[in-house]
Amino acid sequence: MKIKKVIIIGAGFGGLASAKELKSVNFDVTVIDKTNHHLFQPLLYQVATAALSPEDIAIPIRAILAKQSNTKVIMDEVMSIDKEKSIIKLKNSEMTFDYLIIATGASHSYFGNEKWEKYAPGLKTLVDALTIRENIISALELAEKETDLVKKKKYLTFVIVGGGPTGVELAGAIAEIAKKTIIKDYKNFQAYDTKIILIEALPKILNTFQESLSKHAQEDLNKMGVDIMLNTKVLDINENGVKLSNGFIETANIIWAAGNVASPIIKTLNIKTDNSLRVFVESDCSIPNYPNIFVIGDVANLKDQNGNILPGIAPVAIQQGKYVGRIIAAETLKENRKPFRYIDKGTMAAIGKANAVAQIKGLKFSGYFAWLMWSFIHIAYLISFRNRFRVMVEWIWYYFTNKHGIRLIIRK
Amino acid sequence: MKIKKVIIIGAGFGGLASAKELKSVNFDVTVIDKTNHHLFQPLLYQVATAALSPEDIAIPIRAILAKQSNTKVIMDEVMSIDKEKSIIKLKNSEMTFDYLIIATGASHSYFGNEKWEKYAPGLKTLVDALTIRENIISALELAEKETDLVKKKKYLTFVIVGGGPTGVELAGAIAEIAKKTIIKDYKNFQAYDTKIILIEALPKILNTFQESLSKHAQEDLNKMGVDIMLNTKVLDINENGVKLSNGFIETANIIWAAGNVASPIIKTLNIKTDNSLRVFVESDCSIPNYPNIFVIGDVANLKDQNGNILPGIAPVAIQQGKYVGRIIAAETLKENRKPFRYIDKGTMAAIGKANAVAQIKGLKFSGYFAWLMWSFIHIAYLISFRNRFRVMVEWIWYYFTNKHGIRLIIRK
Repeated sequence: MKIKKVIIIGAGFGGLASAKELKSVNFDVTVIDKTNHHLFQPLLYQVATAALSPEDIAIPIRAILAKQSNTKVIMDEVMSIDKEKSIIKLKNSEMTFDYLIIATGASHSYFGNEKWEKYAPGLKTLVDALTIRENIISALELAEKETDLVKKKKYLTFVIVGGGPTGVELAGAIAEIAKKTIIKDYKNFQAYDTKIILIEALPKILNTFQESLSKHAQEDLNKMGVDIMLNTKVLDINENGVKLSNGFIETANIIWAAGNVASPIIKTLNIKTDNSLRVFVESDCSIPNYPNIFVIGDVANLKDQNGNILPGIAPVAIQQGKYVGRIIAAETLKENRKPFRYIDKGTMAAIGKANAVAQIKGLKFSGYFAWLMWSFIHIAYLISFRNRFRVMVEWIWYYFTNKHGIRLIIRK
Repeated sequence: MKIKKVIIIGAGFGGLASAKELKSVNFDVTVIDKTNHHLFQPLLYQVATAALSPEDIAIPIRAILAKQSNTKVIMDEVMSIDKEKSIIKLKNSEMTFDYLIIATGASHSYFGNEKWEKYAPGLKTLVDALTIRENIISALELAEKETDLVKKKKYLTFVIVGGGPTGVELAGAIAEIAKKTIIKDYKNFQAYDTKIILIEALPKILNTFQESLSKHAQEDLNKMGVDIMLNTKVLDINENGVKLSNGFIETANIIWAAGNVASPIIKTLNIKTDNSLRVFVESDCSIPNYPNIFVIGDVANLKDQNGNILPGIAPVAIQQGKYVGRIIAAETLKENRKPFRYIDKGTMAAIGKANAVAQIKGLKFSGYFAWLMWSFIHIAYLISFRNRFRVMVEWIWYYFTNKHGIRLIIRK
């Protein structure tokens, strides 16, 4: 009998969960990713804000799957998918499949204003995180030697667009840098010279959280020195700053945490998608008429029991990855597949050192205890012992010293 | 009385040693560097070979000097030095000085063949190290998916040009990766498919070491799988490989560890230099006719008591930095300055895991004990407790697991 071929595109939370589920079947499994590493995205904002190194939260995919003898790892880019012929095209080759899992994730969307990216990078990859880190540190360096006060103010103004968890975590972390920690090493400006502004189009930040938690986050960010502008839309972004529905902010530092769009490879599927390019999948995460092609994680549009679209977060991707992996391992026929059911384990966001908000099964937590939970859960979910150890050491170091260790400007 | 201005260009070993020597004088000290970090260059080859992270061996200059209240740190590039007018020109400004210390270091020289750099990067900065690291890991990734056996061999052939300490350390470390450690994670080639070649123009490697040590290093590298080609000159380097005085090696991976040239800023001094652009300094490290301008470290050409030019290594730079710092702090007049005397504390080179060669005050060491000494000395000389701790943890981890943790491909 011919050995069946399974191709998994993307080694994020979803793809990796699928691959692991297939470890003991007699299939030929191939994991393809554009990069050579699995990235623990929930902590990416800490790389962007000089708290962690890239190596702390990324691990070679090859190393994770080294002992899985039926699985190959290939670093390559999938250019298109031909669902009729069961072929994927890579840069210089092509491969056929019996089963395909598309788990390519999302990138940031500028809602048609792609030219904003140059001035307002988003945060999805290690390259993004290092770009933002170097922008922040470079802005402080430029401010230190700038004698023109208007320019200096521009360097010391940080604007974060988008008040979801990523925006909130970035704003809090930048406030700590610019108001409390790294600031101490500069001699030509003071904490009160720096400005951190969080912009949100809706009437509240952390929109998916309960009212009281989003209020708590807002108050605490204010105390940390973050100005929050609600009900505020971004109209334009250029080299001078950001134009808002209610004014203009002159700044050299804008970070985009406002929108997502699914990976462009989805377009080559020629299939119905939503505005964010997410595929409308069936209840078993497969696409209509192709029970052997699955779409999971940030690229899938699937509703939960209450009719809400499942959010683009790690637990959804992991649960879908395992679910699909089991279907393929057992070769469950379409008609025998039980619908995917998401088990909501809660949501959380860190606001700063020793402060977070969390809602778990109807319970609400905030402050120190929520932050402890946040810390333990993030460490527990890191892939390897080594990364857990590294992150823990960094956090303990920072907790006691208030020193950010990882603030190098390296890239040209 | 007007406060005297001291400018230090370069925050390597020499510049930093000078700055620290000036910490309690009532001068206005400015340290200028192109980057924002002090780099512990002796371990840079370990960043290039996925054993350490950039953060382990680099530390913001600003953080090192934060508590030195008379000292400012500026990240900028010095474009020219006007010795007559006591002015240095930066990118967008200029500064005057009463004392100037030039400690800008060297970069790699291709002896007039600058076009080779594209195919054979050198190892002087963190950018260089990350470039080399990503080239090595990418070559293995390309080999894994290559079906053409000739191309595959090209990806799996690593050539290091230059058999000095850097070349030897790189060759040993790459042999460990390609023959023992990382290789295990690949499924489409074996250790015997990889080739590591060290090329040296002279009749022996580690030319500044005693005969028996250089022989020891050569034998051990051979055992590790490194082919050493002595008396071999590089005639050309291109995208296909390297043309030698005795043949052509097809390879996609060439690293240049063969020559040094002083920083180009030296040219603007309009002063006598050697072939490597090093300044012929007087016995007090000052330049002729300018007792207030000093040149130290890799950019200085100064002979020791035996008439040998002092080598471009950290201990020379540190001792010269301290020496010059003391002259300036005391404002010692030219005629009262005792000549600089280098105290040779020895030389060492690591060959691989648990193996090194060292010669210290006429004594020779090799093998495990030399490697222990090498490890302790390198950790002791790292600047901060934090970096010492980080490097030690990485080394202990590697010692027991044989796993290289830092093998991400990040840069675009």
